[in-house]
Amino acid sequence: MRFSPLVDELIQALKCLPGVGPKSAQRMAFQLLERDRVAGRKLADVLAQSMSDVGHCQTCRTFTEEKQCPICASAKRSQQGTICVVETAADVLAIEAGGHFLGRYFVLLGHLSPLDGIGPEELGLALLEQQLASDDVKEVILATNPTVEGDATAHFIADMAKRHHVTVSRIAHGVPVGGELEYVDSTTLALSFNGRVEL
Amino acid sequence: MRFSPLVDELIQALKCLPGVGPKSAQRMAFQLLERDRVAGRKLADVLAQSMSDVGHCQTCRTFTEEKQCPICASAKRSQQGTICVVETAADVLAIEAGGHFLGRYFVLLGHLSPLDGIGPEELGLALLEQQLASDDVKEVILATNPTVEGDATAHFIADMAKRHHVTVSRIAHGVPVGGELEYVDSTTLALSFNGRVEL
Repeated sequence: MRFSPLVDELIQALKCLPGVGPKSAQRMAFQLLERDRVAGRKLADVLAQSMSDVGHCQTCRTFTEEKQCPICASAKRSQQGTICVVETAADVLAIEAGGHFLGRYFVLLGHLSPLDGIGPEELGLALLEQQLASDDVKEVILATNPTVEGDATAHFIADMAKRHHVTVSRIAHGVPVGGELEYVDSTTLALSFNGRVEL
Repeated sequence: MRFSPLVDELIQALKCLPGVGPKSAQRMAFQLLERDRVAGRKLADVLAQSMSDVGHCQTCRTFTEEKQCPICASAKRSQQGTICVVETAADVLAIEAGGHFLGRYFVLLGHLSPLDGIGPEELGLALLEQQLASDDVKEVILATNPTVEGDATAHFIADMAKRHHVTVSRIAHGVPVGGELEYVDSTTLALSFNGRVEL
């Protein structure tokens, strides 16, 4: 025992956060105890409430404490008839930051990975298929990560969309804007050549 | 609004932790929501309890939920008659990790800094003086940081200890073990020359 039991327990509990080791946990605990008990109490309250109340949007599976997330609940966005399929809720945020996509999302919360026991069921693909079967959806845009698993997942969903006669596309992979050709890896370069656009 | 209000609020609340910006807060929130709700609930409980229950040890001012911290409560350590004065509770931990110091501590929770309104009163020096006035204390070891403020604080406490005829010493500053002379700054090198020990 290095500190009093409760202080020790607080340091241990903070280590559940990603990227927080023993030293950071200690610094966080002392910072909250010493300077910001109000924020600490607020964090405790919000954390407790979130852990019990936040579930998944019944349409797109992202995190929300309501039945539907604000995006799915917006009639304007659903009427677009476009679904962008992403792997995580953070991906939604990244795309929303651009503000150019006006349809709605479908969040897989993972990717196909049979070795880890993650199949179509775990990704909620039955729910996506239901939505594809309805007449409202005109296009599916696949924005899974360009990894082996992300590619496999994209192919699986593309087949599904074709069965339901829904247009399916995948976001372009290539040289990022502001990147220098010299430092771009060869796979990305190859993809950027394959995906070249006629001017 | 980017997410549902509660998820947004959780991300905002996590930013009160030191070293956690918007991206890390988002990652922490999703990690807890997606994979570890049990740990999240546990953190919320411990956090709420700590923020209300953890106070200061009435002897050494470190953080504890009891009246006295485990070190001050140990008769064996108090009987040593040595008090090590440090600036923060984390310093106690660093010294305890070595396991060579067997006395007890006095935690200032800061250093003298008149510009920020931190005087002897804020550092609990009256409490330290009470302890120096008792006959139990034989030596005070000053382990404040080797900064301008830390030095000023050390001098102030040294004067106080001398008034009460208590031996006072300061930990040695010099080249750290494992450090290479080439990379040590000139002030540290000067200190290591001044503090040289005859063999």
